[in-house]
Amino acid sequence: MADKVWGKFDGDRLEEIIEKGIPIVEKMGVKVLEMAPGRVSLRMPLSGNENHIGIMYAGVLSVMAEMPGGALFLTTFDASRYVPIVKGMDIRFKRPATTDVFVIMEMDQDETERIQKELEEQGKSDFVLAAEIKDANGQVVAVSRTDCQIRSMELSL
Amino acid sequence: MADKVWGKFDGDRLEEIIEKGIPIVEKMGVKVLEMAPGRVSLRMPLSGNENHIGIMYAGVLSVMAEMPGGALFLTTFDASRYVPIVKGMDIRFKRPATTDVFVIMEMDQDETERIQKELEEQGKSDFVLAAEIKDANGQVVAVSRTDCQIRSMELSL
Repeated sequence: MADKVWGKFDGDRLEEIIEKGIPIVEKMGVKVLEMAPGRVSLRMPLSGNENHIGIMYAGVLSVMAEMPGGALFLTTFDASRYVPIVKGMDIRFKRPATTDVFVIMEMDQDETERIQKELEEQGKSDFVLAAEIKDANGQVVAVSRTDCQIRSMELSL
Repeated sequence: MADKVWGKFDGDRLEEIIEKGIPIVEKMGVKVLEMAPGRVSLRMPLSGNENHIGIMYAGVLSVMAEMPGGALFLTTFDASRYVPIVKGMDIRFKRPATTDVFVIMEMDQDETERIQKELEEQGKSDFVLAAEIKDANGQVVAVSRTDCQIRSMELSL
């Protein structure tokens, strides 16, 4: 699995962190579809995550806005030196989700380099991750903007 | 329990809807502390809802921003004629939550009457619910604004 090794982590170990690192998220059944530097893709099953009328619960869609940022951090930055913080999130629910849902989150090379440079110079860097959460038919069920920060472990929370 | 009866629902039944109506929220262990017309209060345990570093997972805090709106709808409006919809949510994480967390959500009489009047005249009404989510020491761990709509069951989604 040499193609799945980045930095200190083996790809399968990274997937395990995302799928099983947070117990309540493991109960939701999130699955990693792709996890590479600058690009992650997750799937969330409808089954077990329905609300009282059988569509995906809004709180679970919020997890699909938040979780990819953590995955992107792990593949793209040095987790032995830095920690990710989620400062806030805005999510707009566009239509009921009646299937499993999917999210792709990406960070291009310029943005990655900007953040890396700020980290080295200032010990922290703020950025925004935008996402569209789509159903199995490719329809957008929610759009989100998550305000993130990465900072050196030396800085206090 | 005559003091806990509103409209068609018995208070204990209402609590059950909030605590057990959505399976993944039941797994989080949310508890109703108070559920009255115009005012609801919920508690979320830290235990079982920690992230990978032992503080409450951001996605669970988001549930504490979303869930009270549903509870407030059930106590304050006629659930046999209207349905609540969450259109969007903005949440800002202020500090790590290292204890159980608590939220109180209120709607005053003027706002309730404004919404009720719009419902009768237009079949739907938009409103914003603001909340502070606090830890066991009374410290604010997150603040949220949720954009809600109530509409007549006759209107299509």
